[in-house]
Amino acid sequence: MQTNKPIKVDTVIVGAGSAGLSALREVRRYTDDFLVVNDGHWGTTCAAVGCMPSKALIEAAHAFHRRLTFEEFGIQGAEGLRANIPAVLARVRRMRDGFVKGPESVPDKLGDRAVSGRARLLGPGRLEVNGDEIEARAIILTPGSRPVVPGPWRTFGDRILTTDSLFEQDDLPRRIAVVGMGAIGVEMAQALARLGLDVAGFDAAETLAGIDDRQVLEAFRPLIEAEMGLHTGASAELEDAGGTIRVSGAGGVFKADAVLVAIGRRPNIDGLGLDTLGVPLDDKGMPRIDPATLRIGEMQVFLAGDANGYRPLLHESADEGHIAGRMAAPDASDHGLCRRTALSIVFSSPQVARVGPPLSDLDEDTTVSGNADFSDQPRARIAQTAAGLLRLHAERETGRLLAAEMCVPAAEHLAHLLALAVERQMTVADMLAMPFYHPVLEEGLRSALRDLAKGVAAVGGSDLSDCKPMGHDALD
Amino acid sequence: MQTNKPIKVDTVIVGAGSAGLSALREVRRYTDDFLVVNDGHWGTTCAAVGCMPSKALIEAAHAFHRRLTFEEFGIQGAEGLRANIPAVLARVRRMRDGFVKGPESVPDKLGDRAVSGRARLLGPGRLEVNGDEIEARAIILTPGSRPVVPGPWRTFGDRILTTDSLFEQDDLPRRIAVVGMGAIGVEMAQALARLGLDVAGFDAAETLAGIDDRQVLEAFRPLIEAEMGLHTGASAELEDAGGTIRVSGAGGVFKADAVLVAIGRRPNIDGLGLDTLGVPLDDKGMPRIDPATLRIGEMQVFLAGDANGYRPLLHESADEGHIAGRMAAPDASDHGLCRRTALSIVFSSPQVARVGPPLSDLDEDTTVSGNADFSDQPRARIAQTAAGLLRLHAERETGRLLAAEMCVPAAEHLAHLLALAVERQMTVADMLAMPFYHPVLEEGLRSALRDLAKGVAAVGGSDLSDCKPMGHDALD
Repeated sequence: MQTNKPIKVDTVIVGAGSAGLSALREVRRYTDDFLVVNDGHWGTTCAAVGCMPSKALIEAAHAFHRRLTFEEFGIQGAEGLRANIPAVLARVRRMRDGFVKGPESVPDKLGDRAVSGRARLLGPGRLEVNGDEIEARAIILTPGSRPVVPGPWRTFGDRILTTDSLFEQDDLPRRIAVVGMGAIGVEMAQALARLGLDVAGFDAAETLAGIDDRQVLEAFRPLIEAEMGLHTGASAELEDAGGTIRVSGAGGVFKADAVLVAIGRRPNIDGLGLDTLGVPLDDKGMPRIDPATLRIGEMQVFLAGDANGYRPLLHESADEGHIAGRMAAPDASDHGLCRRTALSIVFSSPQVARVGPPLSDLDEDTTVSGNADFSDQPRARIAQTAAGLLRLHAERETGRLLAAEMCVPAAEHLAHLLALAVERQMTVADMLAMPFYHPVLEEGLRSALRDLAKGVAAVGGSDLSDCKPMGHDALD
Repeated sequence: MQTNKPIKVDTVIVGAGSAGLSALREVRRYTDDFLVVNDGHWGTTCAAVGCMPSKALIEAAHAFHRRLTFEEFGIQGAEGLRANIPAVLARVRRMRDGFVKGPESVPDKLGDRAVSGRARLLGPGRLEVNGDEIEARAIILTPGSRPVVPGPWRTFGDRILTTDSLFEQDDLPRRIAVVGMGAIGVEMAQALARLGLDVAGFDAAETLAGIDDRQVLEAFRPLIEAEMGLHTGASAELEDAGGTIRVSGAGGVFKADAVLVAIGRRPNIDGLGLDTLGVPLDDKGMPRIDPATLRIGEMQVFLAGDANGYRPLLHESADEGHIAGRMAAPDASDHGLCRRTALSIVFSSPQVARVGPPLSDLDEDTTVSGNADFSDQPRARIAQTAAGLLRLHAERETGRLLAAEMCVPAAEHLAHLLALAVERQMTVADMLAMPFYHPVLEEGLRSALRDLAKGVAAVGGSDLSDCKPMGHDALD
């Protein structure tokens, strides 16, 4: 095989995940002379083991948890409800199987332009797959990422779970430790606890769900702590204790039947041959990449999606594939494409969300903040979901909205509203001019805007702008 | 009493509802020499009989209805759940009692500047209350509205319910006809049906929930029809049939134990003495008012809130009180205050919402539309809420977003996002530049934006704007 002449192709995409498939859409605009090389299952992380199955588990868990509100609502019989874990997991897989059909069908659709195998760079414009050498004008690398599991923990065998294996379980044991309480850890720990399992959460850091703002964390932490044991601030140690795993961390020990490891994901760049490109790599083997182009050095080689570690989120991976695909075109402009306002959402309850940069990146001297406490928000009280805190940050001088972080009900929706405002560089006054219906959670956001407005020089008077009379006929 | 000299006061506010209390806040900025005159209960329509208790009933009903999703989620025992109607209604009143505390406390807070009684205008700057004559520089009329019940139906006594009496019931009979399927009728009919009552809805018109767009109505109607009998397109007739009321309407007859009448609300302007102002009144006794000033004629007399029939919604009433209060100031500018983008939300399931003018007010020749079907929306499928249609309308030439109407899950949130966009005169491209997380319902909105973009000349290429490379350090 290796004696064959190199296969020549215009563009190679390595990895058929969300970034790769997004790149493919753009590549097809300029050429049909491409290959998509994929190692392992043709299914995106998001659809197969990420956003979609996790959300399916969370929906079931939160639906079951709502039974605790039933008596107050006047609904009887909640004590007879049971979460059937095997049935819950079976439904998660049914949903998942539907969502992966799209990416799974890619090889059929692409025919011999789809190659199953592991790609390894041989240098700029050259790679090897299944023993064949390929020469390509442009190479788009979207190899994705995988869950990190510390080597020694692998000895616990299938009692160690990750999001790769969690949704494959037919049933779950009663006691589950979750190590790593970032976005995924908090989502899964809370979902499993709400399904009736005995859950304890561990993290080496003090924060939860990736929250940066100390005030938001202080509002969030007791809400999570009410549902599970929390051990944060020291690395978790695992020890075999017969049939169970003894997990020790900050402030306590938990005997677990299984441990869900959610301490992060590692870019799949090992063995990719990035060292053959002749550009500097950092100590993790990662080259520098410009987020606006995803280009490595000055080459026609791009690294996009989770694998570059920049913003490992589905919507960002889709954007990165899009950018890389456009930048790889023979006639691409020198300019890149602007990245959107950062937006992250954690599907806990209450949800956690951040818009724009973290508070710790803002300049204290020129920034003013506004808060809204949702523990007494009227609409949320009606729905029995009142809890949490929303914080907004703006430029003091101009009132321009810079960032927000929150742990509140329906944060996913409030965060989109704020993301539009930040993206469009709106001021506090711009936002206060919009209608706020009643009773809605957006009124809580308005409270934060009003609080923020107090600190902004440019805001005052009426939310409504000066207007010539509209003419009497408007009321006819 | 009537021989007493007139009481002189700078400003009188007639009605201590949402508009009146909002006006009061502004009036106090320029004078302490005011009176607030209120007829009947010192509690706003919204808090006492409107938005708040209705939402409390709806939350309970929808929470109970979710049991139908439990088996699919893997949750067992839903068949043992029961809605205890007296307990549900008792909770509605508990919530309501909390929300009315604010307005109920107004007389105590204002002392002798609060007057309980019915006000009647005697002419510009003059009115009579409890036999006393009052002379005022400015008069702000916010008398509110009340449910309409056709006179002959009153003979059915307490078997006729309105939102004034519904939440006061200790229990509800099994069979309830809802006459009038506008926003309130649809909300209450669906809530009662979901609580297990046998409900039929009647309306003289063909539309439901105030939907203007035929396509949205066609998507919404079968969803409501699956939960109750619907008789629309002919006036309902009521007839006594012994213990029951025989309600006949389009396509059928329903034997009801009680009838909830929700055919509209009537401004409380009868007996207000508007005829003494010397301005033309229409055949309903209503003067012309400018929405930007709420002023009647050129006088210092203002008519704000539900009573003027312009936009009888809480947030608009609050704005109108605000505007009237500012316009009533001695040093008020000639200009009025601009009204916000119209926004209405119906808390049905799926929710119905409209942003901007109704489709029927738009110019077909210059408008382009985009649709998103939510019956297959991925996030909604995960939550078992997939249903409905969202429609957007923009100016063809510029892509400027003009209006939206929808019946989709979480419409209240999508509508706020769209209201901000319409208020800020954004284009389709402006909106497509924002981040859309995954998986979220906002992605359904994005589908509609993309559909819309096809018809807009000015949109194409990438959602992301052209950007100079951001510099390699961004990834460090």
